[in-house]
Amino acid sequence: MGASKAILIRGRKLGGKTPLICAPLVAATATKLIDEARAVLKKKPDVIEWRVDYFEGITDTQAVVDAARKLRRTIGNTPLIFTRRSPREGGQPTTLDTAAVVRLYKAIGAKKVADVVDFEMRNEHSLVRRVVATAHRQGVRVILSYHNFKRTPGARTLRDRFLKAERLGADIAKVAVMPRNRSDVLALLAATARADAKSRIPLISMSMGPMGAITRIVGGLFGSTLTFAVGEGASAPGQLPIADLREVFALLDRTRKK
Amino acid sequence: MGASKAILIRGRKLGGKTPLICAPLVAATATKLIDEARAVLKKKPDVIEWRVDYFEGITDTQAVVDAARKLRRTIGNTPLIFTRRSPREGGQPTTLDTAAVVRLYKAIGAKKVADVVDFEMRNEHSLVRRVVATAHRQGVRVILSYHNFKRTPGARTLRDRFLKAERLGADIAKVAVMPRNRSDVLALLAATARADAKSRIPLISMSMGPMGAITRIVGGLFGSTLTFAVGEGASAPGQLPIADLREVFALLDRTRKK
Repeated sequence: MGASKAILIRGRKLGGKTPLICAPLVAATATKLIDEARAVLKKKPDVIEWRVDYFEGITDTQAVVDAARKLRRTIGNTPLIFTRRSPREGGQPTTLDTAAVVRLYKAIGAKKVADVVDFEMRNEHSLVRRVVATAHRQGVRVILSYHNFKRTPGARTLRDRFLKAERLGADIAKVAVMPRNRSDVLALLAATARADAKSRIPLISMSMGPMGAITRIVGGLFGSTLTFAVGEGASAPGQLPIADLREVFALLDRTRKK
Repeated sequence: MGASKAILIRGRKLGGKTPLICAPLVAATATKLIDEARAVLKKKPDVIEWRVDYFEGITDTQAVVDAARKLRRTIGNTPLIFTRRSPREGGQPTTLDTAAVVRLYKAIGAKKVADVVDFEMRNEHSLVRRVVATAHRQGVRVILSYHNFKRTPGARTLRDRFLKAERLGADIAKVAVMPRNRSDVLALLAATARADAKSRIPLISMSMGPMGAITRIVGGLFGSTLTFAVGEGASAPGQLPIADLREVFALLDRTRKK
């Protein structure tokens, strides 16, 4: 991608030569969250995502805020993405409705602990715009994401999802889809490359599951700027260990120098 | 690819779970050829290709046959591909015309030293058919190949190249093209997957140069059964070291087990 699109998050460059590696945290309690963060940090991810839908106390905003503050103290200057996914987006079932999630994002944003929030772009547009406006007022970046755990829409539709995220005010656009065959895997990569040629923001994309796992490795060559890896546990099917990704990225880097 | 298409060459399975790794030999003299083979064997390639267009003595059939015999003694039971490429196909300039190459292939085939010969399918059809018929009578397999060092034709055209090779009697179909952009890289992979779904023979494909290098790594996921790696020297742009490929194949294998 064009270097001009790159953004810095706590000194890490999203959109540089090599994709950033993000490890998800999927603990159920505050104590386990900190343990998980400590274990994951040893593997040196570039970014950490807290998948708060795994957190038992998600309905207690104060508990979430307290856990997030402890998490920030634990991870120091590592960029943190704060994300709640609904079951349709591959997340855990919670009792929160989308409006409550918007309020939770606002509460977390106010505390300056998360650098980025991730929100599904298929939510009501008024809510999407509220998340974007609030986050930006708070100095928080927004990933607007599209998930499809059933199938892979066509390359043109996928490209449009990235561009739609940008139109809705996203700082980063993300598309995660499930392939049914090898063509679907290629369609995701092609759509990412096409969107990358048009968009002015960094993109993140992946084809999920074992068949799509290759996109978590080579996505960077087609314009994806971040890849989710297994920290202590996986948050989506097909994620690879951080050390494996570092190894292949070094290898791919060598091939580019030939 | 379907296991039923796999073929065994000296016990090595072309079309198995993981692509075979082939190291080219590009020495100019018989002595250097044997030295090169010895050095390359230490890196444990699955297959060796002698690129005879690099061989100074190419016009002396007896010299080629003698060198090939020594090479066979050196490499033991390692499968050997015997290939002369013209400059248009990315080869070295020689004074041999295509008819002379056909005669050279026949002379080599008679000595039972090479397991496979590779011939460009764009050559005159009568010559292509003669190479196939002679090789098959001699118990030698034939790769019919399509090379384009300038650009990447569309995915449909590429798919048709594989299928044409099969129609012409190839045991293995190969397509090697140069990408101008990322879409070309994906087109090569897509064409390989589409041809793999239709063909009854193993396929080999690659997008060349630094931009296409990724196809030498992930091609196996899209139906390519062999990848050319750097032995002592590269024979085409974008080739990777054997050890690097082994490392990534092991990693890709792990992702498939998740």
